[in-house]
Amino acid sequence: MAQMPTGDGVMYLGIDGGGSKTKAILINAAGDLLGTGVAGPANPLHGVEQTFTSIKLAAELALDEANLPVSAMARLIVGAGLAGVNLPELYAIVEQWEHPFAQFHLTTDLHIACLGAHEGRDGAVVIAGTGSCGYVAVKGRTKTVGGHGFPFGDSGSGAWLGLEALKYALKASDGLAPASPLAAQVEEFLEARGIGMVSRMVGATSRDYARLAPLVLEQARAGDAVSLAMVREGADYLSSLARKLLEEGDVRLSMIGGLAEPLQQWMDADLVKRIKPVMLQPEWGAILFARQQLEQLEKTA
Amino acid sequence: MAQMPTGDGVMYLGIDGGGSKTKAILINAAGDLLGTGVAGPANPLHGVEQTFTSIKLAAELALDEANLPVSAMARLIVGAGLAGVNLPELYAIVEQWEHPFAQFHLTTDLHIACLGAHEGRDGAVVIAGTGSCGYVAVKGRTKTVGGHGFPFGDSGSGAWLGLEALKYALKASDGLAPASPLAAQVEEFLEARGIGMVSRMVGATSRDYARLAPLVLEQARAGDAVSLAMVREGADYLSSLARKLLEEGDVRLSMIGGLAEPLQQWMDADLVKRIKPVMLQPEWGAILFARQQLEQLEKTA
Repeated sequence: MAQMPTGDGVMYLGIDGGGSKTKAILINAAGDLLGTGVAGPANPLHGVEQTFTSIKLAAELALDEANLPVSAMARLIVGAGLAGVNLPELYAIVEQWEHPFAQFHLTTDLHIACLGAHEGRDGAVVIAGTGSCGYVAVKGRTKTVGGHGFPFGDSGSGAWLGLEALKYALKASDGLAPASPLAAQVEEFLEARGIGMVSRMVGATSRDYARLAPLVLEQARAGDAVSLAMVREGADYLSSLARKLLEEGDVRLSMIGGLAEPLQQWMDADLVKRIKPVMLQPEWGAILFARQQLEQLEKTA
Repeated sequence: MAQMPTGDGVMYLGIDGGGSKTKAILINAAGDLLGTGVAGPANPLHGVEQTFTSIKLAAELALDEANLPVSAMARLIVGAGLAGVNLPELYAIVEQWEHPFAQFHLTTDLHIACLGAHEGRDGAVVIAGTGSCGYVAVKGRTKTVGGHGFPFGDSGSGAWLGLEALKYALKASDGLAPASPLAAQVEEFLEARGIGMVSRMVGATSRDYARLAPLVLEQARAGDAVSLAMVREGADYLSSLARKLLEEGDVRLSMIGGLAEPLQQWMDADLVKRIKPVMLQPEWGAILFARQQLEQLEKTA
């Protein structure tokens, strides 16, 4: 049973948990920023205990920055958007966590990114970072498109672009793909050739693959046909993702992630024109989510 | 220092070690089959100790079938072709094994497959099973093409075809790929839809992906355009692999693996015409390899 906090003593903690780090912000009821904290990964797909540890550590660091004791954790209304919990079984596991907070409201990293981007109002986001995904919220309905993960999904993402680059470089090393400067760039980056590239990438994560993406972008900008074909395929996918989201409603559209800006030059011009800036970062979206959930609880109380 | 066996007491053990199982055959100097054994995986990429355990177990089983004691292991001249040892660092690790045999001659699974296919004579093999690869031996020279592994290589293999099928089914579930019966087939096979398919395939191995390949073959044969595009891309890659091998010499060509026969109908007709049957299985190729190595040793002794 969620504990009902009242009065000015209420504090909110916004958590943005991803595959590489966890960001926390601590605010008071008036909306003032009291402290921030950054900890390790919080993607339950890669470790549920690590996820809990990272969230608690990020919370502790934020409290510490606010000169508050660890015991204050029990007073926090937490909104957390985590990678991985789009998988229902992982959502269920994290949801059952015996957390140390007053309340723990869980949702996806996509949801808080969208809430943040549009300040809690209706809108759509296309994410193109290490992974890719689309999310739209219209009149209480939400829809996720893509976000299936590496290696079978996430077209147009850094990991996807890196994988395409490696696939190409390996074929080129066999003389089974057209020559291009990209092959030499990948070999140079990995400091290896042919089967040696495989040795470097055995067991590589999506983040490892994403490190190859800048090479493709660079060569595409320089006019290399092989690289251009890759970035165009990725940009086309992101365009189709955006159109699919906007079928749900004529809402505000934002793009997020390290590849969002670089790939826009190859996306459909009519879409690019309507892309609006992100208003708030995802951790602030997590705060908005916690407030929405608290309002719901108060209504039903 | 290799121990020099002499006379009629010499026995050879041929080992074909792969990602799913290890096959051993035991023969005497006259070439008579004395026993066979099958054990677990022997791909050092997925476990060096497991590889050693599987090889020893397969050897024990073969000796047992021949009514010979385990102590006879110390008399065996072993030829072993293993998956994974095309990576130089893995070759080095396995090569340093303190094995229980008289001699242990190590090479790749590709090499013994090629030796077997052409009875030790010059020839080329295109392998299309769970993975894909090409290998050619001409006048003492050898060359490997492809075989880079999953998920970045192995076009035209079962794992590759399965990954393409899953990528397609996920896009189709978002309405971002043309509809086809294949999408429904993949959903049915995985007993899941949309993100549920991801839950089924998180952490999937190349063998898990390869289980989807028959669905694509079936739909391609039934005329589905999406499936046809996939099998044609795979078959084109295998054709280009074969041509690359035959650049090394106008040698005998064989195809090996579960997808070798099904994909031939979409390969280049001139190549398919010249495909010759496999003469001996890879474990017999391993025996040929051991004999070749022993001859080398005797020459230099």
